[in-house]
Amino acid sequence: MVDFKGMDILHGAQFTREELEHIMKVAADMRQRVEKERSLDVMKGYVLGALFFEPSTRTRLSFEAAMHRLGGSVVGFASAGTSSSAKGESLADTIRNVDRYVDVIAMRHPQIGSAQEAAEAAEAPVLNGGDGAGQHPTQALLDLFTVQSERGQVDGNTIALCGDLKYGRTVHAGVEVYKHYDCKLIFVAPDALRMPPEITARLREQGVTVEEMTDLEAALAESNVLYMTRIQKERFEDPAEYERLKGSYVLTRAMVERINPDLTVMHPLPRVDEIATDVDALPGAAYFRQAENGVYTRMALIGLVTGELS
Amino acid sequence: MVDFKGMDILHGAQFTREELEHIMKVAADMRQRVEKERSLDVMKGYVLGALFFEPSTRTRLSFEAAMHRLGGSVVGFASAGTSSSAKGESLADTIRNVDRYVDVIAMRHPQIGSAQEAAEAAEAPVLNGGDGAGQHPTQALLDLFTVQSERGQVDGNTIALCGDLKYGRTVHAGVEVYKHYDCKLIFVAPDALRMPPEITARLREQGVTVEEMTDLEAALAESNVLYMTRIQKERFEDPAEYERLKGSYVLTRAMVERINPDLTVMHPLPRVDEIATDVDALPGAAYFRQAENGVYTRMALIGLVTGELS
Amino acid sequence: MVDFKGMDILHGAQFTREELEHIMKVAADMRQRVEKERSLDVMKGYVLGALFFEPSTRTRLSFEAAMHRLGGSVVGFASAGTSSSAKGESLADTIRNVDRYVDVIAMRHPQIGSAQEAAEAAEAPVLNGGDGAGQHPTQALLDLFTVQSERGQVDGNTIALCGDLKYGRTVHAGVEVYKHYDCKLIFVAPDALRMPPEITARLREQGVTVEEMTDLEAALAESNVLYMTRIQKERFEDPAEYERLKGSYVLTRAMVERINPDLTVMHPLPRVDEIATDVDALPGAAYFRQAENGVYTRMALIGLVTGELS
Repeated sequence: MVDFKGMDILHGAQFTREELEHIMKVAADMRQRVEKERSLDVMKGYVLGALFFEPSTRTRLSFEAAMHRLGGSVVGFASAGTSSSAKGESLADTIRNVDRYVDVIAMRHPQIGSAQEAAEAAEAPVLNGGDGAGQHPTQALLDLFTVQSERGQVDGNTIALCGDLKYGRTVHAGVEVYKHYDCKLIFVAPDALRMPPEITARLREQGVTVEEMTDLEAALAESNVLYMTRIQKERFEDPAEYERLKGSYVLTRAMVERINPDLTVMHPLPRVDEIATDVDALPGAAYFRQAENGVYTRMALIGLVTGELS
Repeated sequence: MVDFKGMDILHGAQFTREELEHIMKVAADMRQRVEKERSLDVMKGYVLGALFFEPSTRTRLSFEAAMHRLGGSVVGFASAGTSSSAKGESLADTIRNVDRYVDVIAMRHPQIGSAQEAAEAAEAPVLNGGDGAGQHPTQALLDLFTVQSERGQVDGNTIALCGDLKYGRTVHAGVEVYKHYDCKLIFVAPDALRMPPEITARLREQGVTVEEMTDLEAALAESNVLYMTRIQKERFEDPAEYERLKGSYVLTRAMVERINPDLTVMHPLPRVDEIATDVDALPGAAYFRQAENGVYTRMALIGLVTGELS
Repeated sequence: MVDFKGMDILHGAQFTREELEHIMKVAADMRQRVEKERSLDVMKGYVLGALFFEPSTRTRLSFEAAMHRLGGSVVGFASAGTSSSAKGESLADTIRNVDRYVDVIAMRHPQIGSAQEAAEAAEAPVLNGGDGAGQHPTQALLDLFTVQSERGQVDGNTIALCGDLKYGRTVHAGVEVYKHYDCKLIFVAPDALRMPPEITARLREQGVTVEEMTDLEAALAESNVLYMTRIQKERFEDPAEYERLKGSYVLTRAMVERINPDLTVMHPLPRVDEIATDVDALPGAAYFRQAENGVYTRMALIGLVTGELS
């Protein structure tokens, strides 16, 4: 039996396949119970510290909604401006302090490694909601859960990951969970935004079938799932470079219907132009359901690491 | 029987008289129950998305307090800076996403028409808490409820609306509900801030008795209710124009006592100088009770559109 | 029997010794019940208005966690930027308005006297979470509770207060509670940041034993408790003066072990450099427990002033 009580959720690579299966089982149970009962009472009396040193509507609201749907409460902040780091407090001190107020911590922070540092400082379990260009494990888990929900199972799929594979933390976290399954991965990116070669090499060593392409249409013909990502302006130092690359990959409804009508289309959101809005009405357009799965996955994680769900 | 379940609350003009009566009946019931029990349990398990793309203490806190007094929870943001629109996400996408987390949405947004757009994107009911210079229907409803509470009934009153009638969305929303009642309306404004002539003309066509004046004292002599509004600096492009007009209308206690001691004084708040603080102690100074009515009215709306109240 | 119902908590000097004892008794009870039950239900249905016109992670999160652990709800804001004061509303109006939404108010505001002003405007009890360079009574109470918790009792201790004694509101609030006990106080500060002489003189008139020193090590040799404070950059007009003074007093583990291993070390947090991190592992390093005591103290105060605890 897998025991998550007290576990920190820090990076996509920390899980065994058994753990991944278990998280998805609990997330599916959460979905079923929310659809039936709207909210549960399992975390009544618990307080979540939602510490967003870097703004994020989606991840923050998803964690907070998850806690409320579990019957718990939330305290926190939505940007570093209203936190004590402005007064020169170290991250470890801020965390050790908030740790005394709350039962479980969800955080986003602009620095790589910050979630690890927080986990060392806190007695409460820490859920990493993104640490700069680093990891974003809850996103990886909700993505995995979405592949399973949309395709029936994860094994056997070919997943094309497209867009900014160099800086995109959602894909970096994602490959660490897909690698436990019998999936083929296709990395689709312009040369300047390729998946870091050390990641690709490591995955291959671990036995994952990985193909690299620059052409989106060619990738679509081979894939069941397309995981589209935004080319993030904030990751570029040179705005001209951003302007040159941002339009490289744009998925349209015509492309899906012509090449692969059965395609499942995912996206961590927000999208800008990389998925045309006419795709939204396709049955395979899964990105808003994917966002919803974020609530169920985070409910599962909050419940598991506190020991209230098993 | 009026059925509000699933209804979006978008503009003051959307209601029939029967609907207005029903909302006020439920709001009065909410007031009675809060006075007796402090909070209810009718929205237990529900999550309100309070999406304030434009800051507003009053409207936001009033919606949030309403949800808490109904036993529900709240997630959201207090300014656009911490939302995903900063990353280039469209309003429709933001709403469709949050729609997956929550059961009902209250929003304020700087653009006219944004609430309508959100209502089309969301499955959850949308309550418009102000869309730029557009509508502000929950304010109109709480104003109507205040007239009824303070005067015993809405019919038969003469309501003077004073101040910035050109840009003021509270008065634009307000006239759309008063028009269903046997009220006389007096518009009191300097020429530069007159009620838009097309609104005045339309109201007259719909059978409403409307008078226009520039002199506040003359209006007071004829009115039961004065609805004062702030001349909003943020609506002016030319600061000199603002400085010239802002002092046009200032209500003092001496004026009320001399001209019309029975006057009910309302104001959407915040006030700056347009009501002298010595008015506050008069029995007819209703503006803080009016603010409180905002909680009961919003409780009624949240409960009605979710189908938990009827 | 002490009755706190309806009482505003405005300044450290407002309490009798009997009241202080009672607050600490209730706070100790809160700690015991939270340790056992995690949260209570005594404030179910109540809404706290957490009005932070000036940012403060610690005080705000502590108040909010306290309210949640009591079973109540919270509405509010974390900075003045999202409040109506930006539109020119007076503090009294903002408070009188929010007073209509909530049952109890906790506030922080940059102006001295603002909490008093708010208390006059509000019917709900007001808990002052810091008014500029003025008072910070809930900090004083949690500090007192920490001395008692760490030392077994307050009487009989020698408490050294060190750092910025001129501007530091935590020490100004603190001395007003310690003076009710049989404690010796040692003020340790550079000349430029001495305790204002009128405070020192008044304390002596009231029978408190006060000593002033400039040397930290000499003070440590005589003390049971060290209350360290940060030299606050934001209180200085001249940055050069800040740079010159900030390093004056730095506590290290070696100092504690050499001079006074039994020392209880307190700090209102955030610390910057004035307590070396190697002190944290000492058994007497009480500052994070002190932060936790803030939750229990604020639970006690919220419950007492609303009459739900006694």
